Amino acid sequence: MDKVILTPLKQIHTPKGDVFHGMKKSDVGYDGFGEAYFSTVNKGQIKGWKKHTKMTLNIVVISGEIEFVIYDDSTEEFKNVKLSLNNYQRLTVKPGVWMAFKGLENNSILLNIASIEHNPEESENVSIEKINYEW
Amino acid sequence: MDKVILTPLKQIHTPKGDVFHGMKKSDVGYDGFGEAYFSTVNKGQIKGWKKHTKMTLNIVVISGEIEFVIYDDSTEEFKNVKLSLNNYQRLTVKPGVWMAFKGLENNSILLNIASIEHNPEESENVSIEKINYEW
Repeated sequence: MDKVILTPLKQIHTPKGDVFHGMKKSDVGYDGFGEAYFSTVNKGQIKGWKKHTKMTLNIVVISGEIEFVIYDDSTEEFKNVKLSLNNYQRLTVKPGVWMAFKGLENNSILLNIASIEHNPEESENVSIEKINYEW
Repeated sequence: MDKVILTPLKQIHTPKGDVFHGMKKSDVGYDGFGEAYFSTVNKGQIKGWKKHTKMTLNIVVISGEIEFVIYDDSTEEFKNVKLSLNNYQRLTVKPGVWMAFKGLENNSILLNIASIEHNPEESENVSIEKINYEW
């Protein structure tokens, strides 16, 4: 799916603590900085579906485990990925596809580095039943 | 201390999960996007001292609790703040001051939205004993 990029990220471990890479402006998938925010999803809960018309998402899971499902309604194609510190990758989602995500563990937290500031007028929401996926 | 800004941030709670604001490009303290990364600090450990000559730091603590100490060697002034989800503020640190930070809880994690990409040549490090602070 050409609107989704997965990029493995470095983890650097030291005796005092770790450093986990997120995103550099020179990285693949960077599309400008509008806003960075955290979203948590309780275990077993699903947030979505949402489609952005302008925002590129760059998502990193820093705690717990989250399953992401992306649906391209132009090709009727699904893509899913489970991200955590054990599968530590950045998920880039370009505008024009639907996404929903489910908490698989307690204390599941994602960071989104969004290319524009939050603006409810550039996204569409439909309820989870509207796009048929076997969660 | 004029090189440090503390900005309270919103937390939005919903039944499925929460949203925690981090930084918008229109926010006070934003100084461009170079890189976003996470740093963890084990309980009782101290990382520092480090002084950046070009990078502005914008720091949010998303898990645990971390004590930050900033030292301005031009005025010999210290500033300290303990950040956590219970005292949820963004800490902006402009170039030219020393900073060190200590983990106060297990699983203490900060996000830094740095104004430039990591470059070891724009920062200085001294060991923790070199600047006298009663941790």
